[in-house]
Amino acid sequence: MDKQTLIKVHNRIKPFIHRTPVLSSCLINEMVSADIVFKCENFQKMGAFKMRGAANAILSLSEEERERGVVTHSSGNFAQAVSLAAQKLDVKAYIVMPENAPQVKKNGVNTYEGEIIECESTPQAREATANKVAKEKGASFLHPSNQDEVIYGNSTAAIELLEECPNLDVILTPVGGGGLIAGTALAAHYFSNNCKVIGGEPMEADDAYRSLISGKIETNDSFHTVADGLRTHLGNRNFPIIKEHVEKIIRVEEDEIINAMQLIWERMKIIIEPSCAVPFAALLKNKKEFKNKNVGIILSGGNVDVKNLPF
Amino acid sequence: MDKQTLIKVHNRIKPFIHRTPVLSSCLINEMVSADIVFKCENFQKMGAFKMRGAANAILSLSEEERERGVVTHSSGNFAQAVSLAAQKLDVKAYIVMPENAPQVKKNGVNTYEGEIIECESTPQAREATANKVAKEKGASFLHPSNQDEVIYGNSTAAIELLEECPNLDVILTPVGGGGLIAGTALAAHYFSNNCKVIGGEPMEADDAYRSLISGKIETNDSFHTVADGLRTHLGNRNFPIIKEHVEKIIRVEEDEIINAMQLIWERMKIIIEPSCAVPFAALLKNKKEFKNKNVGIILSGGNVDVKNLPF
Repeated sequence: MDKQTLIKVHNRIKPFIHRTPVLSSCLINEMVSADIVFKCENFQKMGAFKMRGAANAILSLSEEERERGVVTHSSGNFAQAVSLAAQKLDVKAYIVMPENAPQVKKNGVNTYEGEIIECESTPQAREATANKVAKEKGASFLHPSNQDEVIYGNSTAAIELLEECPNLDVILTPVGGGGLIAGTALAAHYFSNNCKVIGGEPMEADDAYRSLISGKIETNDSFHTVADGLRTHLGNRNFPIIKEHVEKIIRVEEDEIINAMQLIWERMKIIIEPSCAVPFAALLKNKKEFKNKNVGIILSGGNVDVKNLPF
Repeated sequence: MDKQTLIKVHNRIKPFIHRTPVLSSCLINEMVSADIVFKCENFQKMGAFKMRGAANAILSLSEEERERGVVTHSSGNFAQAVSLAAQKLDVKAYIVMPENAPQVKKNGVNTYEGEIIECESTPQAREATANKVAKEKGASFLHPSNQDEVIYGNSTAAIELLEECPNLDVILTPVGGGGLIAGTALAAHYFSNNCKVIGGEPMEADDAYRSLISGKIETNDSFHTVADGLRTHLGNRNFPIIKEHVEKIIRVEEDEIINAMQLIWERMKIIIEPSCAVPFAALLKNKKEFKNKNVGIILSGGNVDVKNLPF
């Protein structure tokens, strides 16, 4: 892996993604005494950064592999991303989804002609079901976060952000499966001048925080967080990158996530999903640490059921 | 009034407003078989286009007038706009608001240091209270929609839109007090090559529709519309402009407004208020008429109580 690889990845996926806008809010900057820029992946195709990794993963497959299709398991956004990227590349997509996934995310998969296969809402059930489909159909398994091509694709959000704002002191991202923060850490490493990367994680699913302390991949016993995109744990492909390049992880409570989400809705007039509010909640919780800094926040996605909001 | 006047107005208010982005959505374009561009005044300072007219109105006052302050009555957004513009120009603002105005709009006025004076929720009560304050304090009365300086200020949203998209066939705006559509009609007249202007209006407050038929300013007996910014009628300054330059007004039902609002939230991931969804609802209702056209829609504002949504 080097800088050239990421540049190639970025060029390869460009026809399949939006270059999303970078927004800021005077009111929020005043509130926190920092200069914050938000990379709006909630405006990305299908509504989340996941489109970047999914597009790159499918583009990495051989013609023969593409003919047999792709399969993934996902809490939602990666499902839509694979469906849409596969549709655009004329590839069949099998999507294993937990039965309690938000209806808005199931609808997204249907819109993009992915074939949904439901399973129980545990990491184990997801993986077993996806493996079964891969075997039966000969489909290539795409992991939502723990696959190099996905991580490299994800890095392109931060690459674009750093192109526009080269003087960032720090970039904050949410931490779920680790694919976004690992990609962001690679981008900061190769494309910035010492920009740090910090993760925000729900206290209720703080596996990554504990993993960085113990030095091995920890899991969660429960997932009682509103941040439905972060109900998962790190993997062996992204954890080494995170260990090496991520400064630290800040944990936040559920009410802090909801308040941060509401603040962005009300002040910036943009729709973000709960997972997406986690790094901003981490900043609000640690205002002193970020005072007078140039901060980038990756707003990871905007797929939320507007009829079922947490506030 | 001529083109030069509007150019001067635009230059004068530029330091006090955002040049808001123009967004589009592939999914929405496919859905309606037209090329739609949305001028996002929901991202304007204080969250609505009203900042443009308010800034221009205060900038038009003499030093002496500014010292005595300004007063207005408003269903909400103009209140915030006058408060913020006055704060920036170090002018005292008295704001007459209906007692049932959304709390989010009252909070906005407080944030910008406007002094709220509550009254009953009728046009008559608003006007009487504002006149009283004007007399007692010597404050200059600013009308939310029926004042030349406000109309000219409002025109700058469409001027910017036409600069970016000079080939628009039609621009759609909501119709409430008439200040936005009149300003937009002037902009289209002076800055476009035959671009039409069409209004969207709730069936439940269709005074402007009836006014264009009868040729005189009609009022509403009731205001049972979710579009809280449109619960008002035209005035003697904007009606002549509307009569001369507006193509027509399309009326929409309440459920059509709410569906259009939800569609923009879900597809574009941006927050718009109900009034703001009315012209898009008009387009959805009349898809055939707009087929293959280049359509601009002024998204007028995004100030909505996110804890009290119509869907």
